[in-house]
Amino acid sequence: MSQSAKRVVLVSRPVGEPKPSDFRIEDATVPTPGQGEVLLRTIWLSLDPYMRGRMSEGPSYAAPVPIGGVMEGGTACEVMDSKNPGFAKGDIVLARAGWQTHAVSDGKGLTKIDPKLGPVSTAVGVLGMPGMTAYTGLLDIGKPQPGETVVVAAASGAVGSAVGQIAQIKGARAVGIAGGKDKCDYVKRELGFDECVDHRDPNLASRLKEACPKGIDVYFENVGGAVFEAVYPLLNAFARIPVCGLIAQYNETEASVPKWASSLMRNVLTKRLTIRGFIVSDFASRHADFLRDMSQWVREGKVKHREFVTEGLDSAPAAFIGLLKGANFGKQLVRVGPDKA
Amino acid sequence: MSQSAKRVVLVSRPVGEPKPSDFRIEDATVPTPGQGEVLLRTIWLSLDPYMRGRMSEGPSYAAPVPIGGVMEGGTACEVMDSKNPGFAKGDIVLARAGWQTHAVSDGKGLTKIDPKLGPVSTAVGVLGMPGMTAYTGLLDIGKPQPGETVVVAAASGAVGSAVGQIAQIKGARAVGIAGGKDKCDYVKRELGFDECVDHRDPNLASRLKEACPKGIDVYFENVGGAVFEAVYPLLNAFARIPVCGLIAQYNETEASVPKWASSLMRNVLTKRLTIRGFIVSDFASRHADFLRDMSQWVREGKVKHREFVTEGLDSAPAAFIGLLKGANFGKQLVRVGPDKA
Repeated sequence: MSQSAKRVVLVSRPVGEPKPSDFRIEDATVPTPGQGEVLLRTIWLSLDPYMRGRMSEGPSYAAPVPIGGVMEGGTACEVMDSKNPGFAKGDIVLARAGWQTHAVSDGKGLTKIDPKLGPVSTAVGVLGMPGMTAYTGLLDIGKPQPGETVVVAAASGAVGSAVGQIAQIKGARAVGIAGGKDKCDYVKRELGFDECVDHRDPNLASRLKEACPKGIDVYFENVGGAVFEAVYPLLNAFARIPVCGLIAQYNETEASVPKWASSLMRNVLTKRLTIRGFIVSDFASRHADFLRDMSQWVREGKVKHREFVTEGLDSAPAAFIGLLKGANFGKQLVRVGPDKA
Repeated sequence: MSQSAKRVVLVSRPVGEPKPSDFRIEDATVPTPGQGEVLLRTIWLSLDPYMRGRMSEGPSYAAPVPIGGVMEGGTACEVMDSKNPGFAKGDIVLARAGWQTHAVSDGKGLTKIDPKLGPVSTAVGVLGMPGMTAYTGLLDIGKPQPGETVVVAAASGAVGSAVGQIAQIKGARAVGIAGGKDKCDYVKRELGFDECVDHRDPNLASRLKEACPKGIDVYFENVGGAVFEAVYPLLNAFARIPVCGLIAQYNETEASVPKWASSLMRNVLTKRLTIRGFIVSDFASRHADFLRDMSQWVREGKVKHREFVTEGLDSAPAAFIGLLKGANFGKQLVRVGPDKA
């Protein structure tokens, strides 16, 4: 067990795109757990778009990371030492240890990871928060019916890839949107989406229309911006729009007025649209259903997934900056430590 | 039985506010029912904001009235002659006979009115489409919980008045918005809303904020425009917004870009808002529940309602133009003929 620890702290609130200088990598000492606490060693750190929100002040569903504070994040960790009867040395747990190699926890919010379900990394990916975001948003809000058309952007990413594949399991047609030919090929050929459209194509709107000849019944919104502009005129009556993210807009310094603005409510009325925002914890009661279904689908090969791994905690800031630009290809993970110390 | 008939036809598509010259009152002869048909005599014509949409071309949930065609509308009618075994002379039925004194029908879409439920006029009011719009939109989309705050505009009108009173029956706090002191007094004192705010008040936004110290959990949207601007910043996390109408915007000739546009989707996400458009026929399966509950509430005095009646079919165009300006005070009805011929 290493006696030195590291952490990544936020040193300034980014204006627009985060820069490497908005973060600082600090050396630290491995903390000592007190009574009732456990010492955690991070194996995998999950990087996710919502973290951009935590870097800014302003109203959101969670408080921002304070300046000088450790960046927040979901992790898969090993219990190195336990003074909490609920956990034993060697347990592998899902935690929110943040961007650091070690952390102490009072055990609240820790969940033991069942190694039979899959590799540890999947606990922060397809069998973790991103997978459950896809599962609950699509099934509990989107409610795709057989023969309907489901559209999702960032289709090669952790959430989007699961959305399209679950839609197909439910008998719907899956149309992805992704950045560049390689990702689109992967989404169509490897993941088996019915179609995938490149959002960099200057004719995105007409390409998407061709890919959705019967219109769009469910648009799983995780990017916003230009993609929503292309989706909007194609929405069918009674379309559902679960909104879990707006990554294309997270770095905006000035809110732009979208083209759809003047007609949105009229269309909500005449097309009877449903637009509903959610975050994964709103559906906590669905966790057992999710784990049961998703682990089975992954085992059966019905839901494929890809991981995009950078090595070492030091790589986290650049990897996160890249994530916001779509530089990743699959679920973005940081390998912080080995599976077994 | 009168042998002469009258009808109101649409002669031009209004630009902005409808004018009397957009309508023409025509003499006609009483039609003769063929085999399987019934002859209807209109007693009550209901005037409702959705009719403005039928006067315009452009995408909506229903086709426009053709130029030269009889204006559409819900009516309570007496069966004067029947060659349809499902109906007998003297039956009182709910129909969509439109703006005319007489019509023939093949019986499809006709519903016999149970006179035990209330006066015939209520079948096109509190026990008809407006009442059911309030009931289903509020209960099936808004889902008010005890202690929550429900806001509705046009609160002295047919839909709004029912929304607030049903909200209170469900244990929620009802805040109305209405035009002018008389209507606000009626909404608060007669209907018993907890608060009512005048939308003509130049400080509408701050008045509404005072009236909703715990924010807004359900906003029943039937007006749009400036009222939504005032409501928007007060929406609580997990607020629900059933959208059944946008009367403030129906006469717009140029779509304006609302102030909330640049932040709507961000707020949908961070506050987990639900925005859902509906029309009453989407909830047809709830009709029996509605009639059972609403007729009981009206009998018990828990839902009060007011009718605003103009006399004679000739009065319909001016009454409708007034309705769009809020000139009515309660459910707008046209008395086309006597209860019994």
